[in-house]
Amino acid sequence: MQLTGQLLIGQSVVTGRNGTLHALAAATGEPLEPAFGGASLNDLETACALADDAFDTYRETGLDARAAFLDAIGRHIMALGDDLIERCVAETGLPRARIEGERGRTVGQLALFASLVRDGGFLDARIDPARPERKPLPRVDLRLRNVALGPVAVFGASNFPLAFSVAGGDTASALAAGCPVIVKAHSAHPGTSELVGRAIRQAAQECGMPDGVFSLLFDVSREIGRTLVADPRIKAVGFTGSRSGGLALMHVAAARAEPIPVYAEMSSINPVLLLPAALDARHDTIAPQFVASLALGAGQFCTNPGLVLAIDGPALRAFEARAAEAVRATAAQTMLTPHIHASYAQGVAALRDHASVESLAQGIEGGRHQARAALFATSADAFVATPELRDEVFGPASLIVRCPDADTLHRVLKSLDGQLTIAAHLADGDAALFAALRATLERKAGRILVNGFGTGVEVGHAMVHGGPFPATSDTRTTSVGARAIERFLRPVSYQDLPDALLPDALRDGNPLNVPRRIDGVPAPREANHV
Amino acid sequence: MQLTGQLLIGQSVVTGRNGTLHALAAATGEPLEPAFGGASLNDLETACALADDAFDTYRETGLDARAAFLDAIGRHIMALGDDLIERCVAETGLPRARIEGERGRTVGQLALFASLVRDGGFLDARIDPARPERKPLPRVDLRLRNVALGPVAVFGASNFPLAFSVAGGDTASALAAGCPVIVKAHSAHPGTSELVGRAIRQAAQECGMPDGVFSLLFDVSREIGRTLVADPRIKAVGFTGSRSGGLALMHVAAARAEPIPVYAEMSSINPVLLLPAALDARHDTIAPQFVASLALGAGQFCTNPGLVLAIDGPALRAFEARAAEAVRATAAQTMLTPHIHASYAQGVAALRDHASVESLAQGIEGGRHQARAALFATSADAFVATPELRDEVFGPASLIVRCPDADTLHRVLKSLDGQLTIAAHLADGDAALFAALRATLERKAGRILVNGFGTGVEVGHAMVHGGPFPATSDTRTTSVGARAIERFLRPVSYQDLPDALLPDALRDGNPLNVPRRIDGVPAPREANHV
Repeated sequence: MQLTGQLLIGQSVVTGRNGTLHALAAATGEPLEPAFGGASLNDLETACALADDAFDTYRETGLDARAAFLDAIGRHIMALGDDLIERCVAETGLPRARIEGERGRTVGQLALFASLVRDGGFLDARIDPARPERKPLPRVDLRLRNVALGPVAVFGASNFPLAFSVAGGDTASALAAGCPVIVKAHSAHPGTSELVGRAIRQAAQECGMPDGVFSLLFDVSREIGRTLVADPRIKAVGFTGSRSGGLALMHVAAARAEPIPVYAEMSSINPVLLLPAALDARHDTIAPQFVASLALGAGQFCTNPGLVLAIDGPALRAFEARAAEAVRATAAQTMLTPHIHASYAQGVAALRDHASVESLAQGIEGGRHQARAALFATSADAFVATPELRDEVFGPASLIVRCPDADTLHRVLKSLDGQLTIAAHLADGDAALFAALRATLERKAGRILVNGFGTGVEVGHAMVHGGPFPATSDTRTTSVGARAIERFLRPVSYQDLPDALLPDALRDGNPLNVPRRIDGVPAPREANHV
Repeated sequence: MQLTGQLLIGQSVVTGRNGTLHALAAATGEPLEPAFGGASLNDLETACALADDAFDTYRETGLDARAAFLDAIGRHIMALGDDLIERCVAETGLPRARIEGERGRTVGQLALFASLVRDGGFLDARIDPARPERKPLPRVDLRLRNVALGPVAVFGASNFPLAFSVAGGDTASALAAGCPVIVKAHSAHPGTSELVGRAIRQAAQECGMPDGVFSLLFDVSREIGRTLVADPRIKAVGFTGSRSGGLALMHVAAARAEPIPVYAEMSSINPVLLLPAALDARHDTIAPQFVASLALGAGQFCTNPGLVLAIDGPALRAFEARAAEAVRATAAQTMLTPHIHASYAQGVAALRDHASVESLAQGIEGGRHQARAALFATSADAFVATPELRDEVFGPASLIVRCPDADTLHRVLKSLDGQLTIAAHLADGDAALFAALRATLERKAGRILVNGFGTGVEVGHAMVHGGPFPATSDTRTTSVGARAIERFLRPVSYQDLPDALLPDALRDGNPLNVPRRIDGVPAPREANHV
């Protein structure tokens, strides 16, 4: 498919005339064709007006029709074939196998949300039937369902050009909830964005979805993103990226006449706890697994293990030696963008030059935009006293904090900000210590894992990809997995409506066949007529 | 029970030394004994430290024990007997029957949340079992449960001295979720607050709850409230009150290093739509019902019908005449505080003096702090052009907007801010118009009701007492009914934890016997072992 560099404003394909941008080949930094035209404020206005117009129709599409739309998006993404894979590899520098895997995950996410839509449980339909005989006052008939929040702005992430970008988790969950979506494409992969955007547009057309259910904007400055979040027709924001970027959008959203939720997934250093018995027994096997997780995708994962906490002693030093060896054997890898590479190099240099930090190893030297893995160590006292050591260094760098004892390890853990994940490595003798730490782990992270690393994020019903601030802006939610749909819903209750005027999900005969609660008790579908 | 005017800092009863305040008798404005000592920043610090210390213990109390605590609070409130009723009547000026009814609702809310806790469904326990055989990668074992957010600050409301105050809906739902609560008592009913606070303290002691699960602070300035919301140990805020008060707390919360959710229920004018066939057929019966709802509790309900929208014509004029007659027969009623009365008088005067507003009627003149009901009318054009006509006038005043036709009525509806409730009065001929309006009603309100008024708020599973800004600060939630508990929870997921180290709600054998989902499918309790 030929790239045109055009905006998608609903079903219209429009040439952006507010400046131009080019993708840069990640490997060389050379610009890739074509030029992408930036959206004007006028284009933005049109996209918002269309999304708002589409909203009431789209949110009431039948559950099967909406699910079919999500599935069709997945099909059209697959139909892009190698054009998508090749462009994405060129723009991101990520290996082909990774991009193919990410495409599978993206299509899988769409399928998961399609299945949730078909099921209808996300509507949370509830009926408290009238009780005319109740004393002293008769009880009214009260019914509740979730409705979609409204048009949603999605900001694609650089590090997941498919799974957290144009048709990624935020878009899939918002569309599933019944919200039109306007995507602000990430400038690091505009060609990938255009291809995926066209797949969504085609699916919308094929499935007869209202014009404006989806738009895709490119921009050359931050003005379009800020104006999008400030637009009164936008009712929620999905964002994956830097802490400063997320905070900027949170401030715009909070300053609106009507504040709106911003779901920003921002920064996390994903501590790895090596508990004593596991460290004693398995330091030689954990170390290379740790370095493999650290270096995966050039360390460009939100769940990258940027911090290791352990009790100092011979086993930790042996772990360090083995991990250093693995780091020294790690090939350099191309980073997503020259900007990300420059930030990484700066972060590594700051750690290396820090008086309290010891450099343990660095990886094999590579090309101009390639990241070398790096491993550092420091003391617990220095770590607690030095806030900048807790900042995320986005890339394959990690810092080991040597704690004199378990109490200090717990104290270091308590000093941390919120995290997406905390991984603990345990052996049998560590159960009591883990049990003592668990409450703190729960306070600090959205996902707690044992004897693994956070870099694999399973897309399912029980996944939480979230966590306390600054890991995310809203710890009550997840951006991966089934519960992501809840971010874009609000409850409405209906009192004493005649059956014919109720939404179908709440009518007596349950014509949508959705799960419902009667007086709070989940009722089987076949038996939940009232 | 003798009032002492003291603070409750966990189990400690402490004399506040940061100034004093007195309750004022609502009827006379005379101060009531005793003096209440204001909390110092030091008292606040102690309360926050205790709440934070109590948190990990309290949130893991057994479900039955926590439910028993909620029930015990209700029992101890009832045991206060007439002391509570009499003090509350004196402080608020509300009639005895209303206070007794509100006490029943308060105890009923506690019982509802106790039943939710016993059920365990609020934990949203989910298990995606491992699939070691999955290709290309084995699937991990992933389990999710909700955990409590952390200590919660609750600001009591003036207009519900029991049901939305010290042991009101916010406190009950936060305690049910597993969050310690620090209440900032409303200065309009400190004696009621002390009595209820002591009931909670006694229940906590009797049930062996950790010290710090509950504290009650009085304050003489806004400093304590602001500092409470800014404290890093506080993780959420419940507030019912004015728009300016809610916005102030939202700003404090958004400016924190770690922003936290504020659930503020603020201002709503609760439009009443009189659709043409209903107006024709029933104007004579709807009018007195409307005025009864308007004047209920001196109009001091968040759901008070402050706006009427209808198509102009003889039926509307007949409705107006009948309503005006009922207003003129309405006795004046004591308002909650002299301040609320002064604001009401000012709001009514502004409407009366407005060039575009016609005064239809006012109620019987009363005493110094008593509100006279008031009814006004204006044109649709004037209403849309005049933003201040959309402001809430807290008290028994309402404005009828005469619309030339149904399209204009719809346009006026679209011009409104978010609302807690919208009531539509329908007859058979109005079905098509209602169906055409329903999408707009859903965008604008948390609760839509037919042939009734919003002033009765049923406490159940399907209630939404919420709505788009500025009705509330967070339209994704409700402050009344079962779903209120969700405001104080966040999901945590657990990956590959050995069974013995999992929280009980997620262990293989389901020892808590809570409802769970296996791979997203709700499993019967008896069959949801894995």
